[in-house]
Amino acid sequence: MLTADQIAAMVNARIHGNPGTTISAVSSFDDAGPNDLTFAVDHSFFSRLDETNAGIILVPNEAPAVAGITLLYSDNPKLAFFKVVAHLMPAEPLAAFIHPSAVIADDCTIGDGTCIEAHVSIGKGCTVGSHVHIMANTVIGKQCRINDACRISPNVTLADKTRIGRQSIVHPNCVIGSDGFGFVQDGHAHAKLVHTGYVHIGDCCEIGAGNTIDRGTLGITRIGNGVKTDNQVHIAHNVKIGDNTLVVAQVGIAGSTTIGTDVIIAGKAGISGHLNIGDRAIIGPYAGVSGNVRPDDIVSGIPHMPHKIWLKVARIIPRLPNLRKRLLSLEKRLKKLESSRTEQS
Amino acid sequence: MLTADQIAAMVNARIHGNPGTTISAVSSFDDAGPNDLTFAVDHSFFSRLDETNAGIILVPNEAPAVAGITLLYSDNPKLAFFKVVAHLMPAEPLAAFIHPSAVIADDCTIGDGTCIEAHVSIGKGCTVGSHVHIMANTVIGKQCRINDACRISPNVTLADKTRIGRQSIVHPNCVIGSDGFGFVQDGHAHAKLVHTGYVHIGDCCEIGAGNTIDRGTLGITRIGNGVKTDNQVHIAHNVKIGDNTLVVAQVGIAGSTTIGTDVIIAGKAGISGHLNIGDRAIIGPYAGVSGNVRPDDIVSGIPHMPHKIWLKVARIIPRLPNLRKRLLSLEKRLKKLESSRTEQS
Amino acid sequence: MLTADQIAAMVNARIHGNPGTTISAVSSFDDAGPNDLTFAVDHSFFSRLDETNAGIILVPNEAPAVAGITLLYSDNPKLAFFKVVAHLMPAEPLAAFIHPSAVIADDCTIGDGTCIEAHVSIGKGCTVGSHVHIMANTVIGKQCRINDACRISPNVTLADKTRIGRQSIVHPNCVIGSDGFGFVQDGHAHAKLVHTGYVHIGDCCEIGAGNTIDRGTLGITRIGNGVKTDNQVHIAHNVKIGDNTLVVAQVGIAGSTTIGTDVIIAGKAGISGHLNIGDRAIIGPYAGVSGNVRPDDIVSGIPHMPHKIWLKVARIIPRLPNLRKRLLSLEKRLKKLESSRTEQS
Repeated sequence: MLTADQIAAMVNARIHGNPGTTISAVSSFDDAGPNDLTFAVDHSFFSRLDETNAGIILVPNEAPAVAGITLLYSDNPKLAFFKVVAHLMPAEPLAAFIHPSAVIADDCTIGDGTCIEAHVSIGKGCTVGSHVHIMANTVIGKQCRINDACRISPNVTLADKTRIGRQSIVHPNCVIGSDGFGFVQDGHAHAKLVHTGYVHIGDCCEIGAGNTIDRGTLGITRIGNGVKTDNQVHIAHNVKIGDNTLVVAQVGIAGSTTIGTDVIIAGKAGISGHLNIGDRAIIGPYAGVSGNVRPDDIVSGIPHMPHKIWLKVARIIPRLPNLRKRLLSLEKRLKKLESSRTEQS
Repeated sequence: MLTADQIAAMVNARIHGNPGTTISAVSSFDDAGPNDLTFAVDHSFFSRLDETNAGIILVPNEAPAVAGITLLYSDNPKLAFFKVVAHLMPAEPLAAFIHPSAVIADDCTIGDGTCIEAHVSIGKGCTVGSHVHIMANTVIGKQCRINDACRISPNVTLADKTRIGRQSIVHPNCVIGSDGFGFVQDGHAHAKLVHTGYVHIGDCCEIGAGNTIDRGTLGITRIGNGVKTDNQVHIAHNVKIGDNTLVVAQVGIAGSTTIGTDVIIAGKAGISGHLNIGDRAIIGPYAGVSGNVRPDDIVSGIPHMPHKIWLKVARIIPRLPNLRKRLLSLEKRLKKLESSRTEQS
Repeated sequence: MLTADQIAAMVNARIHGNPGTTISAVSSFDDAGPNDLTFAVDHSFFSRLDETNAGIILVPNEAPAVAGITLLYSDNPKLAFFKVVAHLMPAEPLAAFIHPSAVIADDCTIGDGTCIEAHVSIGKGCTVGSHVHIMANTVIGKQCRINDACRISPNVTLADKTRIGRQSIVHPNCVIGSDGFGFVQDGHAHAKLVHTGYVHIGDCCEIGAGNTIDRGTLGITRIGNGVKTDNQVHIAHNVKIGDNTLVVAQVGIAGSTTIGTDVIIAGKAGISGHLNIGDRAIIGPYAGVSGNVRPDDIVSGIPHMPHKIWLKVARIIPRLPNLRKRLLSLEKRLKKLESSRTEQS
């Protein structure tokens, strides 16, 4: 149970309406009832703030005031909303615990307050920090380092030598540190390269469910601090990804490509190997990137091109049959003109 | 061992040829021998029914009769064929059994006739129905509900609060209920949204191997009854999928999109977030859908367009170099005409 | 510690410079120090062989000699380099061992020198060869056959009847032998086909992390000898792949398609069902292949087309807005000419 007043204090918001209005839960704009807090960020909601049954609405400072509705004005209403969610539904505190079925090599170091669930395997020479949560059926190879306050979800495989920074989350069924797709022709066969590198994941990262991140062939595959990847992302050997970059679902990044900081790669995009993607670049969905992208550039399409051009191209592609028809008609008409001119002369 | 007569009775077929012909196994048209049943649905087979060595052929009613060959005429010969397969190779009956290595929270309810294999983990507050098969090394979070006669394959992760209807199958290494890709900008960093929703899967669904289905951020990610997904499908937070929809391999569906009933989404297609795909729509392979699709529409291509137009566009794209050449030639010829006209005047 | 002399003998190379130069490790061209061996294959390195600090450089026979630098000339310097890597960092020998937590059916046959790690499950009637490494938390169904010297990584699921040849590697979290996406319309519902086939993987294969390979519906899904697949590849029911074919990350191959030997399928390509891809064909990245491809053909694009044409098409697509503009201009100018001609006559 929170009053508008209490929420305003918690998230530094300004109240319009009744400061004593109370809520006990949260919901989306359209599903909310009188005991719910909701939020409305998009301008399209501003004309219909009276259509939600929510008790309190978190809105940006530019939202209109509406009589009879309790509004909380915030610089970042979505962030404020999820702070209230976290307050109302706090995560269960992690209890230090090692399940007896976990198989942990004798020489591993395990920090205080760490929880290791059932059927986990941890290989020789690993260091696991404090308050780490290693969930059921995860397999951790040899000589891995997992820093404080990480969560490694169920059915994850961390191959030998993987390093993960503080407060990072690895979602279920990820593979981190698998051998890259590296072969060398030996007569007719593809001879396997010994992969001696490893994967380094920074602090405060999230690695989405079902990701596969290959180890470096010789050196390191490096994921910077604050990087978030969505589900089913593939990151090949020796890729480097800069801090705070976002990688959306089903993206593939080929070997030895370097991605800058604060980049956004939209869903299903593919990036070829040995490329440089500059800081703050944005790669559109389904894009097929086969060349370098400069900092701050926005590119889309297969092949990739400036996004502004892609928007035009995307409108033209469905009209190609019409354009072809018009070209054919021009050819006929021009031929006619040409022949008539010949007749004239 | 089954006679043509017995099969005819079993699948409600009409016999042409010898009712006493026996088969003991099944095979494909080209591989079958005299003791095999096969089927021929496609019209291209009708002219070569004498080319298979199969003892009996299941055919549609419009197939021709061929002297000396035992044919079974059926309204749905493929369905009939697989009914015989199921009869000849019945699934081993499920024996009620809980492997001693399974770790099941004390307060879970497990129904009659349910089998829980080795190294399974089941969290607090779960309800598992009757005749459910939970296969080895699967991890089930807290407060999940799995209804009667489901099969949950090995190495699956079901996150907290996941609900699965009756007679559904989850194929190996799926992740259901992972946190969505939801962040909000907090200064320079991407702050994580607390995901409090869950995934609801209906009755008689199949979820393909290696799928990832995210929980709702606040509400529900809902998969309707009879939905079948192929392998490596990604379904983001708060997506709704209507009954009997088919989703082929490597499709990605972004957050909060609503898909109707009886939709078909072909392999590798991508659907952006917050869209509506109408009932019975068909989305072609590799399509990049970035806008709503009306009921019964068939769309293809990147960007998506009516399938009929895409068929034309797909023929024109490889001819673009030729069309460009012709355009350049037109420009030259027109320039020549224009200048000759200037000379004339 | 190896001298240039010793390496030359090991990999059959010719020495330029000091045969007594020693190295103790390996590194990439730009990161190497004086105790490292490196290699330089690409011609772009030849003009800057003096820029690496490596003690010894493996180069192809056509590389120039540089005074004061120890070079080893080899027919295949990359292969030679990785032979030295394998010598310096030998894989730990596999110790015969079965972890007590592994659950193995009584009637399985397990060969000599085989290692089965923690939390593995192996079903009835399996045969596992000698010197096989089955890593933690992998689940193997009934009646599987795994031949000598294979490595099955953690969290893999092998469904019933899967067969794997000698010396093959299955990377983490793969699913092999899952039911295909096979249904038949039964009134309004999609009735499941009983899948009675299986997957056969040849000798010396590598199956990348997170692959899903479906069993044959009736017959076999067959992966030839020496085939290598990258991560997140999907191979549907009854696909056949010929020897030594390479399949790059996130490729999808639909049901019943036959791929030849020595084919290369680049990342994210999709191949429709029931097609034939000829020997030695090359499929470009992101290609959408919806028709047969002849032996030795190189194809790219959506729809797929000869790669040479795709290279031209890819240059034209971003210029479509310009071409359209020029077409419109032509139309206006032609109209003007036509009307002036009408006036003349």
